[in-house]
Amino acid sequence: MLEALKEANAAALEEEVPIGAVIVCKGKIIGRGHNMTERLKDPTAHAEMIAITAATEAMGGKYLNDCRIYVTVEPCPMCAGALAWSQIGEVIYGTADPKRGFSMFSPSLMHPKTRIKSGVMKEDCGRIITDFFKSKRK
Amino acid sequence: MLEALKEANAAALEEEVPIGAVIVCKGKIIGRGHNMTERLKDPTAHAEMIAITAATEAMGGKYLNDCRIYVTVEPCPMCAGALAWSQIGEVIYGTADPKRGFSMFSPSLMHPKTRIKSGVMKEDCGRIITDFFKSKRK
Repeated sequence: MLEALKEANAAALEEEVPIGAVIVCKGKIIGRGHNMTERLKDPTAHAEMIAITAATEAMGGKYLNDCRIYVTVEPCPMCAGALAWSQIGEVIYGTADPKRGFSMFSPSLMHPKTRIKSGVMKEDCGRIITDFFKSKRK
Repeated sequence: MLEALKEANAAALEEEVPIGAVIVCKGKIIGRGHNMTERLKDPTAHAEMIAITAATEAMGGKYLNDCRIYVTVEPCPMCAGALAWSQIGEVIYGTADPKRGFSMFSPSLMHPKTRIKSGVMKEDCGRIITDFFKSKRK
């Protein structure tokens, strides 16, 4: 999750909503990304989407069954849908997103075989978001 | 929708699940795409995602409020989530997808201001999919 936080910090430096993600397979990072919706003017350029595209490229296939994604914030429905298509083995996220998080939808947006873990380093993952929006409001 | 069907046909010729999409703004096509998940080995490469990225690029901004998307099949949750982020004005789809369509989820995955129209040229949109899977099973 420290690596995902590094990505989130990189996003903050680029004036993007600071969310970061890394995808790990067999102990190795095979994809990483941070939110780039502003720079790319593309609403699909979320941290998870960029990390998924990078990871499937690295794997040479469109499934990520043996991988896990670490993401600083609870994925939105778009990203959850993409993670479902990838059949990723595990999703580990930091802070919850009660407004747009995937977990408020039913039936589940994630693949039935995907393990979900939440709250990992949630204070750090949440603080960077709160600080970002605080600085924006000044 | 005829243009979206052309995209779906292009997908079929590439051995991709034949789904196509076009995004129209003020009578002009500003983005188009067809499913490319196999060729790109990328589960995020759905017709709608490719069309959204192309359209926002053409618009120079990440919102598509004044646009409509024509897509041959009901969008999945990933694509619905992406369309929600784009705040697209209208979603017009052909055949329903009772297995993975966005409409089976609640609350709604689409943006509250997006108008939804379904069943447009649904026989043509559905036939190309059915034919594709029939030929695969041979």
